[in-house]
Amino acid sequence: MSKEKVVLAYSGGLDTTAIIPWLKETYNYDVICCCVDCGQGEELDGLEERALYSGASKLYIEDITDDFCENYIMPCVQADAVYENKYLLGTSMARPGIAAKLVEIARKENAVAICHGATGKGNDQIRFELGIKALAPDLKIIAPWRDDKWQMDSRDAEIEYCKAHDIHLPFSVDNSYSRDRNLWHISHEGLELEDPACEPNYDHLLVLGVSPEKAPDEPEYLTMTFEAGVPKTINGEEMKVADIIRKLNELGGKHGIGIVDIVENRVVGMKSRGVYETPGGTILMEAHRQLEELVLDRDTMAVKKDMGNKLAQVVYEGKWFTPLREAIQAFVESTQKYVTGEVKFKLYKGNIIKAGTTSPYSLYSETLASFTTGDQYDHHDAEGFITLFGLPLKVRAMRMQELEKNHSK
Amino acid sequence: MSKEKVVLAYSGGLDTTAIIPWLKETYNYDVICCCVDCGQGEELDGLEERALYSGASKLYIEDITDDFCENYIMPCVQADAVYENKYLLGTSMARPGIAAKLVEIARKENAVAICHGATGKGNDQIRFELGIKALAPDLKIIAPWRDDKWQMDSRDAEIEYCKAHDIHLPFSVDNSYSRDRNLWHISHEGLELEDPACEPNYDHLLVLGVSPEKAPDEPEYLTMTFEAGVPKTINGEEMKVADIIRKLNELGGKHGIGIVDIVENRVVGMKSRGVYETPGGTILMEAHRQLEELVLDRDTMAVKKDMGNKLAQVVYEGKWFTPLREAIQAFVESTQKYVTGEVKFKLYKGNIIKAGTTSPYSLYSETLASFTTGDQYDHHDAEGFITLFGLPLKVRAMRMQELEKNHSK
Amino acid sequence: MSKEKVVLAYSGGLDTTAIIPWLKETYNYDVICCCVDCGQGEELDGLEERALYSGASKLYIEDITDDFCENYIMPCVQADAVYENKYLLGTSMARPGIAAKLVEIARKENAVAICHGATGKGNDQIRFELGIKALAPDLKIIAPWRDDKWQMDSRDAEIEYCKAHDIHLPFSVDNSYSRDRNLWHISHEGLELEDPACEPNYDHLLVLGVSPEKAPDEPEYLTMTFEAGVPKTINGEEMKVADIIRKLNELGGKHGIGIVDIVENRVVGMKSRGVYETPGGTILMEAHRQLEELVLDRDTMAVKKDMGNKLAQVVYEGKWFTPLREAIQAFVESTQKYVTGEVKFKLYKGNIIKAGTTSPYSLYSETLASFTTGDQYDHHDAEGFITLFGLPLKVRAMRMQELEKNHSK
Amino acid sequence: MSKEKVVLAYSGGLDTTAIIPWLKETYNYDVICCCVDCGQGEELDGLEERALYSGASKLYIEDITDDFCENYIMPCVQADAVYENKYLLGTSMARPGIAAKLVEIARKENAVAICHGATGKGNDQIRFELGIKALAPDLKIIAPWRDDKWQMDSRDAEIEYCKAHDIHLPFSVDNSYSRDRNLWHISHEGLELEDPACEPNYDHLLVLGVSPEKAPDEPEYLTMTFEAGVPKTINGEEMKVADIIRKLNELGGKHGIGIVDIVENRVVGMKSRGVYETPGGTILMEAHRQLEELVLDRDTMAVKKDMGNKLAQVVYEGKWFTPLREAIQAFVESTQKYVTGEVKFKLYKGNIIKAGTTSPYSLYSETLASFTTGDQYDHHDAEGFITLFGLPLKVRAMRMQELEKNHSK
Repeated sequence: MSKEKVVLAYSGGLDTTAIIPWLKETYNYDVICCCVDCGQGEELDGLEERALYSGASKLYIEDITDDFCENYIMPCVQADAVYENKYLLGTSMARPGIAAKLVEIARKENAVAICHGATGKGNDQIRFELGIKALAPDLKIIAPWRDDKWQMDSRDAEIEYCKAHDIHLPFSVDNSYSRDRNLWHISHEGLELEDPACEPNYDHLLVLGVSPEKAPDEPEYLTMTFEAGVPKTINGEEMKVADIIRKLNELGGKHGIGIVDIVENRVVGMKSRGVYETPGGTILMEAHRQLEELVLDRDTMAVKKDMGNKLAQVVYEGKWFTPLREAIQAFVESTQKYVTGEVKFKLYKGNIIKAGTTSPYSLYSETLASFTTGDQYDHHDAEGFITLFGLPLKVRAMRMQELEKNHSK
Repeated sequence: MSKEKVVLAYSGGLDTTAIIPWLKETYNYDVICCCVDCGQGEELDGLEERALYSGASKLYIEDITDDFCENYIMPCVQADAVYENKYLLGTSMARPGIAAKLVEIARKENAVAICHGATGKGNDQIRFELGIKALAPDLKIIAPWRDDKWQMDSRDAEIEYCKAHDIHLPFSVDNSYSRDRNLWHISHEGLELEDPACEPNYDHLLVLGVSPEKAPDEPEYLTMTFEAGVPKTINGEEMKVADIIRKLNELGGKHGIGIVDIVENRVVGMKSRGVYETPGGTILMEAHRQLEELVLDRDTMAVKKDMGNKLAQVVYEGKWFTPLREAIQAFVESTQKYVTGEVKFKLYKGNIIKAGTTSPYSLYSETLASFTTGDQYDHHDAEGFITLFGLPLKVRAMRMQELEKNHSK
Repeated sequence: MSKEKVVLAYSGGLDTTAIIPWLKETYNYDVICCCVDCGQGEELDGLEERALYSGASKLYIEDITDDFCENYIMPCVQADAVYENKYLLGTSMARPGIAAKLVEIARKENAVAICHGATGKGNDQIRFELGIKALAPDLKIIAPWRDDKWQMDSRDAEIEYCKAHDIHLPFSVDNSYSRDRNLWHISHEGLELEDPACEPNYDHLLVLGVSPEKAPDEPEYLTMTFEAGVPKTINGEEMKVADIIRKLNELGGKHGIGIVDIVENRVVGMKSRGVYETPGGTILMEAHRQLEELVLDRDTMAVKKDMGNKLAQVVYEGKWFTPLREAIQAFVESTQKYVTGEVKFKLYKGNIIKAGTTSPYSLYSETLASFTTGDQYDHHDAEGFITLFGLPLKVRAMRMQELEKNHSK
Repeated sequence: MSKEKVVLAYSGGLDTTAIIPWLKETYNYDVICCCVDCGQGEELDGLEERALYSGASKLYIEDITDDFCENYIMPCVQADAVYENKYLLGTSMARPGIAAKLVEIARKENAVAICHGATGKGNDQIRFELGIKALAPDLKIIAPWRDDKWQMDSRDAEIEYCKAHDIHLPFSVDNSYSRDRNLWHISHEGLELEDPACEPNYDHLLVLGVSPEKAPDEPEYLTMTFEAGVPKTINGEEMKVADIIRKLNELGGKHGIGIVDIVENRVVGMKSRGVYETPGGTILMEAHRQLEELVLDRDTMAVKKDMGNKLAQVVYEGKWFTPLREAIQAFVESTQKYVTGEVKFKLYKGNIIKAGTTSPYSLYSETLASFTTGDQYDHHDAEGFITLFGLPLKVRAMRMQELEKNHSK
């Protein structure tokens, strides 16, 4: 009888390498590795050899970058979903996409379990596992870092364990920050960041770009177009969303855009402190907002803002595959029909400075807005408007006056 | 019998000068002028002479800067009230304060009416009038720009009218942008801004500071402390709120901070485009947010965010003197008890870059946040947490699987 | 040259009869009458003759009952949209449907204006006119009750005016309550209701049913099924939505269901007091809620509740043809996919008493809910859940203890 | 050296009796029993003797009924806090009050732990424990039903265990429904209720009153007054809140008021089904709402509704002692200043039928609401109001027309 299979979310790093022999030894599984590429820009050559050498029976390399951009990132951009004022959800949006791919491979391989290397203190365990539960509630989930049978409590212990299982591989020297990277962003935790009183050491820390101080002295103009809420061109060149984000990453990184230093509230109840770099994403979201200003009416903007905040909570909590996320997304999509037009701005040392916006669906009317009275606007209307708009508080004030008068009699 | 009195919101400019003889001629009023100083930084010497010469029987100069800072600005800062993502409500917060002072003078003078010079297309007429209605529903409100008896339709016509009434005064040359200034901000409308496709001419436009490009090449560090949500010191020096804003205006202006270009939705139903400079306010709000990150729990932050958005709507709409504004403010005040601590940041060419935050009430715990397992955190707890947190979607997924299984039988 | 045409929302009553000659005389229009049937259950025989006799050149009788039920009522039922706790939006939902039909006729007839008979103090003028503006912004709107050229200030004056224009018709004696009726509800205003201190005279007032006191002593059981949020059968009999509402009106009216006495806040700024009878609608909404309880998860329910409240505001304000209403409806529709199942209840003297609910998509699991520990639920999980769920407040409490300890040293 | 002490939430029933010897044997604790009286109406005579006989070293009987009414119930009534449309939070509001008292006794006794008998599947464990964590984060919490050392898995096993420890006591025969009762309500779970398809057996189930069918044929009128949101009199008789609830319970129970059958979503992730009787509470909340209708303006009502829903979530989740609950309560209190007046209604077979409302602070104005035009309301104002209120959608419609026209060229 053949062994049961587990699908392991695999990166080739020390942790997920050590997990391979551990899964075999501890659970007697056949280990299928799966490396999901969300545009993290890592070298994947030689990864298969490495996985097999470490004891896996197979390695899938799955590029979901376009899926990630179109089905996870864009709904959040359109919703203007930002967690706690600052965090653009880079890791949060990627986890359900990865989970979906792991489930797909598990089904294909008839695996009975999925294993991930996320720690027991973070949000990612929740996001992976809620994704798996929602898509494949029958699959077992193995999280070694929370597993009593996992005995390795340090990097050295893991290396020792690998060697004891005849895995002799070079592992990158621990660069000490704990990082997560994909096409949208890179996050940094650890080292000096663990004390919120400390200023981040940006020279040491930044990966995707430079700090505003190190950015060029010359600003750079940029023109983008959107159709129905989706970015279509940069400086006149048509590109798919993933390439637009790549291009914006390059530009944003160069000009010191999108660096965020935040103390955030994790789902598991504690605060953590991190630095995020989201150079392209920051530009994309600002450009989208800039266009919406011209196209959305006041009521829609106000409720959409609440929906965006709600979506940020839902996505942060790993509740992607839920009816609530779908419903919010349906709301947001409905508002994007006319988010079509062109935005210009310039990038300069950390700033995104607006330089003009146009749209065929613009609700701005120069005639209405200007100070001269035109056909469309009669100043007398304002009189009536204010009278009724202020009626409730006038009625209230009159009632209070009346009561006071009676009292003082 | 003596004439009835009107209190006129007076600035000494052309509009409010022309209104004086117009009020006397049209309504036979005795005109009491009132210039309310919200820190707009204008020269007030000679204003009394000017008002009397123009036909007013009296001029009150009322400095409400501290009242404005403490009772209007600070509640909005604490609420993080921002209108449509960008606008820090500079004009909106000032109008009710001015209205309250006008009512106070009207009562003192036994006036029967209040007159303001706001146009019929803007938000300010609403804010003034809702303020007056709420505080003195019996007073008549006169808004010449909406009054059929007001015949002047241009600057020249006003000057002509003044001359015809023997008022020979120098008036500042119209600088063409329509502006409103107080301690918190200055707004700009008109000229090239009337076309959202145009980039603002910042060299021409800026008053309170410079653009990021023109800002110094050297960053500047700053330390602020707060007690219960109120700023207390800058770089160790204790100041009242108004002085803190003054100091921050100077620093922010110097470093190109707080310039906003926005197409916003007015209450009266049309979009308008403006540029706001809020150098000090932008820093103050960011500093306050930076401290709240450390001190507020996740649930409170999320609901407070909604409340802040709501307050921004309410204040923008001129509904300051309402039960709803009071209730939201009560909510916000309740959250500020522990917003005490120190924030550091540096200012550099339009950027406010965090450089460390501390608070005795910090909810951040390095032990909890770090990756080592400590006494307070047992990795097994995460197991249970995820199981129950994900239970609803697992139950749902199982039910769906079951249904599919039955279908395919 | 032929005259310009106006489309008049016509009922055949005194008001809209008097408007016909007035429109011809005042504006020299050719008057096209349009009676839109939303299931108000009035006699329409002879109406054409009456309209033509009154001077109209044509009468359209348009039955939109099914459109009203499917496209206006059902989205609100699914959203559980209730205004100020009580009002089921009967009139509010009908007005945009009527406006759409008036616009359709106006286009067909190449009319230049639409005229309605709503008063200047109510919500309906807003709802009609916002509907027309959104669908046909070029059409002129005529509201005689707000028109300076309308001189009739009483019923008698209208009758006199009709006679003077050779219209000799019997008009129903004014029954004194001001009412609006359609398939969904009837509203009552006026008479004793104008004083909120007065108890309504239900014996005099009720039209669609009886008071609970007059309802039968025997309860009546009812079974309904829904598919994807839409009611399909009553007691096993399949019917279209309009017929389901008709049937429920009959049953609800008989058992004293759905009578509401409310002081509500109108859009135009004052409070008004009315009594609504919504016998069938009350049952339908309760039945739908009863099914959703079983099928929707907690997160979705909570946000959907806010959306329903928001939709109620939007619809009450006449903002049906807006991007916001469409977006909220998209949200709600997305949640209805699995609102399929059967609900039983009994009707008894004003009460709707649940008697059992089932659904293939039920998220209720007896195994999970019961007190015995099963496979799916490990009591230890609760331990971990509570630890992390309560972590923020424990951290906070510990920090406060620590501070107190330091203070007391 | 003396033993460490534990405070046990004690009722005298089988569960909490068996826990006494178990705590002594398992943890070697000195057991301090504490019976917290929230008005559950149980016989407390002989309870001390019983506790001591069972091995406790002391029994505290603590009546917190007034505290419960004034500090837990009233804030929720004023907020109109209702969980998932139906549940009036009877148990949820009591748990933090009990937790606070247990902590108080623990401090007085220098105990090191608190023990409660709530099961591992319900909400109450969360509410107790979050309360304790927030007030005394240093205290250990013991929940036998989740404790591996607790071996009793049935009623019989518990009785056996008691006997083995020489506790020979009569225990009430298990009545099979699982119930929780206090002054505000009684909840029922279990038996036929475990299947949502089953109609509740009300004859068997009801404790605080009768079903509508069994209620008297004669309606009964009632008058209540409120001052600043707090009920003060019933039928002219002044009473403290607890007595008002007692009186309303009697009347509501008699008339079949406040019986709710609900499938609700527990915090721990599953749905459960229960029946609640809240006879007095249902009347009190309806009466309070009835008065608010007259006194609160539209904006305040709308936001307060969202706050009430939010508070219901927070209280249901056991997060009473949190900054968020305090902030919401501050919001609500701020709105109650003028909720003063008199409400009349009649009770009849499950119905609460309004019979008139008055308030010195009423915002209802008969002059404004009625159909005649008065001084305060000029029909022309409506014209201007609608023009500006509808401006955004008109501008939008015009833009769309223009685009279409261009397209069809």
